[in-house]
Amino acid sequence: MPEPPRSLCPISLALDIFGDAWTLLIVRDLMFKGLNTFNAFLNAGEGIATNVLTDRLARLEAAGMIEKTRDTKDARRYVYRLTSKGADLAPVLVQIVLWSARNTETDVPPEQVAAMAADPLGFAERVRESLLRRDL
Amino acid sequence: MPEPPRSLCPISLALDIFGDAWTLLIVRDLMFKGLNTFNAFLNAGEGIATNVLTDRLARLEAAGMIEKTRDTKDARRYVYRLTSKGADLAPVLVQIVLWSARNTETDVPPEQVAAMAADPLGFAERVRESLLRRDL
Repeated sequence: MPEPPRSLCPISLALDIFGDAWTLLIVRDLMFKGLNTFNAFLNAGEGIATNVLTDRLARLEAAGMIEKTRDTKDARRYVYRLTSKGADLAPVLVQIVLWSARNTETDVPPEQVAAMAADPLGFAERVRESLLRRDL
Repeated sequence: MPEPPRSLCPISLALDIFGDAWTLLIVRDLMFKGLNTFNAFLNAGEGIATNVLTDRLARLEAAGMIEKTRDTKDARRYVYRLTSKGADLAPVLVQIVLWSARNTETDVPPEQVAAMAADPLGFAERVRESLLRRDL
């Protein structure tokens, strides 16, 4: 059973789903890095623990943000993808990237930051559409 | 001493600062609700615990997101405000509000959502500017 919401504030409701240090990194892996398996998320660079990853994938699935299907090449393995609700986070992640790029040093190439900054809404919309097209 | 960053990914760096269930609610209180004291944050509606609030305020201050000054009316009390780095989160919070409003029921009046959705970047910029003006 999911916890009851702390309030109906839209920011609080969102943080009930992704208000932790790891969930948006999994969304990032699916959204920007083309990663879609448990092991790929595990090795994505920040050192997420297996039990934390298992928990966050289950929460994302319960919240309707991701779906999993069995890998057609290896039925023991799941392949994850963002639902439309998950892909709809693209503008949030783009703005987080831009905020970090404006306020600290990051590993994002300057030309990529410039492309995002020039048209953040359009950039996010193209990411979102490409994720949804991939799932057809 | 702050923890070393998990990676230089801009999303990971941002979550090192606000990747938890409470920090962005304090930013929300400062940004949209005009709240600026410990007791106001404590009573903002989601039931944050005093020790969690104390910890998050210290982390926000250490990260350069908020500043505190002594209340001129009551020197035992601090008044908090967002720095320019904190106020710069306005586009992130606006996109989180819009994401929640598109994907679930929230307590935000529809006309306010419509105003944000019509021009999210402009809305955020007006919020940011008004926060910075307030601090002059």
